[in-house]
Amino acid sequence: MPPKRSTCPIASTLDLIGDRWTLLIVRDIMFFDKHRFEEFLDSPEGISTNILANRLKLLEELGLVTKQPYSNHSRRMSYHLTEKGESLRTLLKAITRWGLKHLPDTEIPREE
Amino acid sequence: MPPKRSTCPIASTLDLIGDRWTLLIVRDIMFFDKHRFEEFLDSPEGISTNILANRLKLLEELGLVTKQPYSNHSRRMSYHLTEKGESLRTLLKAITRWGLKHLPDTEIPREE
Repeated sequence: MPPKRSTCPIASTLDLIGDRWTLLIVRDIMFFDKHRFEEFLDSPEGISTNILANRLKLLEELGLVTKQPYSNHSRRMSYHLTEKGESLRTLLKAITRWGLKHLPDTEIPREE
Repeated sequence: MPPKRSTCPIASTLDLIGDRWTLLIVRDIMFFDKHRFEEFLDSPEGISTNILANRLKLLEELGLVTKQPYSNHSRRMSYHLTEKGESLRTLLKAITRWGLKHLPDTEIPREE
């Protein structure tokens, strides 16, 4: 877990999710119904396996994501948002709106 | 400038401000009326001079911040938000609300 830099809610939030990858995994679960390691790897940003494994572990430690076996007969894991993870929806929508309005060549990806 | 990873507005926004420091400088200008290099250094998170110089340069390149001489007889610079920088206000408020609600020991810092 990263050390807390101050009591500022902005700084404290960035301590947790202030990087280029963590919120993309939350996005994939929240908006694209992705739940498995391979599905996250398939996203267009091209996350590497080691960063993905690291961020999934971090998201679990933060209580934003839980994992469970994909089926009774599988050791493969399925990742889901907790209630706390779901609470990021408003923030992700605010980021989406800012990006769509202010950054060229951005668009809501189509559902596959 | 960081390379664009996809056309997703979330990923594209994180390409620009997805790190632990950039938004803290925007916060300092927007909410604490800080405008000078030394004032940013004084913030409780303890940004280093090299990261601060790097992020100020990035914010200028992104068109979020402009700099001007602090006075007619000074070579010291004063940093201000552009209209595009000001447009981050809603997003910063969403981050603030999420942090205050979900992270322990966070509070709005008092004005000094």
